[in-house]
Amino acid sequence: MKKGLLLIISGPAGSGKGTVLARMLAGRDDFAYSVSMTTRDPRPGEVDGVNYHFVSHEEFDRLVAEDGLLEYTRYVGNGYGTPRAQAEEVLASGRHLILEIEVDGAMQVKEKFPEAVAIMLLPPSFAVQEARLRGRGTETESKILERLDQTRREVPLVDRYDYIVRNEDGGAEQAAADILAIVRAEQLKSARDPRAAQRYFAD
Amino acid sequence: MKKGLLLIISGPAGSGKGTVLARMLAGRDDFAYSVSMTTRDPRPGEVDGVNYHFVSHEEFDRLVAEDGLLEYTRYVGNGYGTPRAQAEEVLASGRHLILEIEVDGAMQVKEKFPEAVAIMLLPPSFAVQEARLRGRGTETESKILERLDQTRREVPLVDRYDYIVRNEDGGAEQAAADILAIVRAEQLKSARDPRAAQRYFAD
Repeated sequence: MKKGLLLIISGPAGSGKGTVLARMLAGRDDFAYSVSMTTRDPRPGEVDGVNYHFVSHEEFDRLVAEDGLLEYTRYVGNGYGTPRAQAEEVLASGRHLILEIEVDGAMQVKEKFPEAVAIMLLPPSFAVQEARLRGRGTETESKILERLDQTRREVPLVDRYDYIVRNEDGGAEQAAADILAIVRAEQLKSARDPRAAQRYFAD
Repeated sequence: MKKGLLLIISGPAGSGKGTVLARMLAGRDDFAYSVSMTTRDPRPGEVDGVNYHFVSHEEFDRLVAEDGLLEYTRYVGNGYGTPRAQAEEVLASGRHLILEIEVDGAMQVKEKFPEAVAIMLLPPSFAVQEARLRGRGTETESKILERLDQTRREVPLVDRYDYIVRNEDGGAEQAAADILAIVRAEQLKSARDPRAAQRYFAD
């Protein structure tokens, strides 16, 4: 059984990440989503193990101390992170694990798990991104400005990602195909199969 | 215009390279084949610039001295090599250039042109390879043994290639799709687009 890939997918607001991932995962059972861990209380309707793994502050701090989280952050007094054990279990089953995380978390994961594959999904340009955010009409001006500021901080770090996928207007299908091509190519890397030659002669 | 990729494809006798490449290139005009240069005389029907670029020994030696060949070898008194200028012209036009070469040449190219993408196409196993070679019924026993010997020398160097693609029995279509996935993924590598962030904000 070949190990699955740890797939980091980041993308600024307006990159269309949700749509692209939905297209990409349609009909595929070889991918799983990582469920984050948090110390915050469940909101009405949230299910433990589905929306989040809800844990105590003590449990969270213990995992941080034991290097049991691939990445984590603390926000307004609560911890949020990606449990390592769950990730390793999915990968050992041969499925690919998708971490939909922001740039800081992505860098933490790449450090602890260098074989992770980091993909940045981008709108065609900052101007298009801004037009998309305003076009939604669902967010306040201050929220939009906050997201654009975050983009100005995060996109310059795109060179720390392995791949850049562009989501053109109406191009979610192509972006999904691009990510699947990356997954296929990564599986074929000789570095992921160090015993290929021995097996070739032994089989 | 994005530069094309220099694509090295190697594979032992019986790997089905010809069939896989024919499937892969069907209907695509974004790939070109590299035409080798040689000092040997044209055989009846061979056309200069199509089968080979036929040159004098002096011209060949001059190119070797000027680092004008991406790889070369000498065999039974004649030189064979891959002209660098032709390769750079194709890549600058945005097309991908396919070099179908053996392991030694592939290593020379990777040294001079580190951004080349090296793919080893392999039969499922050595046993299957041997069965394919014997099944053809077109080659002498000594020729078959010579090719198997070459495989024993070359396949252990597969870890110097970037990717390993397997051509299972009846799997040429899949192998062709795998190579196209590699090409697509390589084009999306952030390392091939160092100014991505600047362009994102400028466009």
